[in-house]
Amino acid sequence: MSESRRLEGQVRVVGSGLLGASIGLGLRAQGVDVIVDDVSPAARTLAIDYGAGRAPAEGDDPAIIVVCVPPDVTAQIVERELHDYPNALVTDVASVKGAPLRELLGRGVDVTRYIGSHPMAGRERGGPISARADLFVGRPWVIAGHDGITYRRAAALEDLILDLGATPLEMSPDDHDAGVAVVSHAPQVIASLMAARLRDAPDASLGLAGQGVRDVTRIAASDPALWVQILGANASTVGGVLREFRADLDRVIEALGDVSHPGAMRVIAETIGDGNQGVARLPGKHGQSKTFAQVVVRVDDRPGEMGRLFTEMGEIGVNMEDLRIEHSPGAQFGLAEMSVVPEHEERLVDDLIRRGWTVTGR
Amino acid sequence: MSESRRLEGQVRVVGSGLLGASIGLGLRAQGVDVIVDDVSPAARTLAIDYGAGRAPAEGDDPAIIVVCVPPDVTAQIVERELHDYPNALVTDVASVKGAPLRELLGRGVDVTRYIGSHPMAGRERGGPISARADLFVGRPWVIAGHDGITYRRAAALEDLILDLGATPLEMSPDDHDAGVAVVSHAPQVIASLMAARLRDAPDASLGLAGQGVRDVTRIAASDPALWVQILGANASTVGGVLREFRADLDRVIEALGDVSHPGAMRVIAETIGDGNQGVARLPGKHGQSKTFAQVVVRVDDRPGEMGRLFTEMGEIGVNMEDLRIEHSPGAQFGLAEMSVVPEHEERLVDDLIRRGWTVTGR
Repeated sequence: MSESRRLEGQVRVVGSGLLGASIGLGLRAQGVDVIVDDVSPAARTLAIDYGAGRAPAEGDDPAIIVVCVPPDVTAQIVERELHDYPNALVTDVASVKGAPLRELLGRGVDVTRYIGSHPMAGRERGGPISARADLFVGRPWVIAGHDGITYRRAAALEDLILDLGATPLEMSPDDHDAGVAVVSHAPQVIASLMAARLRDAPDASLGLAGQGVRDVTRIAASDPALWVQILGANASTVGGVLREFRADLDRVIEALGDVSHPGAMRVIAETIGDGNQGVARLPGKHGQSKTFAQVVVRVDDRPGEMGRLFTEMGEIGVNMEDLRIEHSPGAQFGLAEMSVVPEHEERLVDDLIRRGWTVTGR
Repeated sequence: MSESRRLEGQVRVVGSGLLGASIGLGLRAQGVDVIVDDVSPAARTLAIDYGAGRAPAEGDDPAIIVVCVPPDVTAQIVERELHDYPNALVTDVASVKGAPLRELLGRGVDVTRYIGSHPMAGRERGGPISARADLFVGRPWVIAGHDGITYRRAAALEDLILDLGATPLEMSPDDHDAGVAVVSHAPQVIASLMAARLRDAPDASLGLAGQGVRDVTRIAASDPALWVQILGANASTVGGVLREFRADLDRVIEALGDVSHPGAMRVIAETIGDGNQGVARLPGKHGQSKTFAQVVVRVDDRPGEMGRLFTEMGEIGVNMEDLRIEHSPGAQFGLAEMSVVPEHEERLVDDLIRRGWTVTGR
């Protein structure tokens, strides 16, 4: 979270799902007066009970309104809020940025007080019950500027983003939509299509599944209703990425059709090689383009052993950036795979070994 | 690991990469006399230094030989080992099982002492330096039987699998290859093709990447040389899965081409819905078809806090099946997402709250 609060005035949050409730929680933690509204009185009450803000009241005069509703009603609610609160800056957090702006312009709405935005944060589980004040900490939050609004007018949005601990990132609506098409929307379709291939596979085949297919298909558990809206609102851009994907897929299918054909093996090697290059371009977990070093430690399956490891990690003074525990039923020990900054790897391994830990991999 | 050793006699491991060296380490931990051989003297020495076994010697008479070489030379090495050691059962661990058997039969090799197998274990990093005695613990290990060998003859393979802590799973070579095509080989191609789309994306687009695309493309970092062999040896089966994938992809591309067309949205909803059904069929992390409950706890960013959490988890007496730490730079706390068996969730949450922990999600 930022050191001191930047935002002044009231904030009105419309829509109390995961994002709306998390924005409310985060801003209230900074002492902001947050008003929560929702078309569903029950949802509003739940979010308020959760600490996301207070109910609307006579005389509310928000400096900024954050519309957190499904993509297909975003433009309509933005228009209503612009009308109802003539002093407020209005933003939305929909996953697509071109469509809502075009819809507002198409309806003839004055957009001098509207600017779209998109926090790159979310969880698999939705609803206010999954909300977290820190949902946006360290995450990029796109501000999708347009010609109809002045920089000065949009300043409150940047303050709100910084108050939530996120990093403002300016992009045009079209650049944003092209970006999420390739790093979010197309991967969702691809993961869903791959997962669909598992529907009719024999149980015995599924018993062979390892971590790879689990990772590839994890986001296939996403909500169809939400994704129909997102993909529908970014259809042509996502379609473009998928057509490029299909052209490559066609080459692989052809190569696999006759592997003895000259060049077939080369197509397969290039496919895997191109994938190597692509995945290497992804920035590190927290948006830095830094990769962490992994240190794997054996942890005996006794109560308190994991505690001892972490106590000693604290004593050694190396920060864990990420951690995975592998523990198989019946095994007498587990493996803790810790991610640390590469500069600390050497010292950590030395210190752990000196303290009697078995480092089984790095 | 199993309570007591089952395997009798020497084991000869041919090929000292990740799998060969891990088999050696695991069996030596059980007191088995393991002989390690490799076409590369340097690789062999490294594996022996690592503790995977001893060098071959005059008079070696292995009960079982495990061939751990790349798929394209597997049949050739199996044939040589059958010839050189006329008393031994010979198995291999190649990722495809139909092709080596067909190649052996095609060469006129007597396969009454050969039975293929495939441990469903591996890591992204290869080589003996990544080897682990526990690599196979709790993992399925396919025994791909065939008509030319008797059950009694193959018993040593089952003993070896059990001694390594793995779970033997009998499947025909064709059923095995169909299984890995859908849960391993096709996902590899799909992940690589998706990752390839990131190659030419602008830096700004990549800055929007979240956990989803990272998961979908993680295995795209795999070795092209290895995958050319695997995909080449299972080409027609993988090609079949990819053609089914393409038929579904074509429908999505068509739907995205005109989202206002009647039925287009339905195609998209069904695509995501089919993916929901497919991913739900994947068995739990360790091969059980059980899913774990997640409990998310806030952990202040102070040395020893994580240690205290794990010490108290031990006191509460709930076993963590998996754990992920989320910690953003600059944030004053992290989040520990712990997976536990659902029956323990309620009690764990109650106990943690009673002990003063903040449970931020479940």
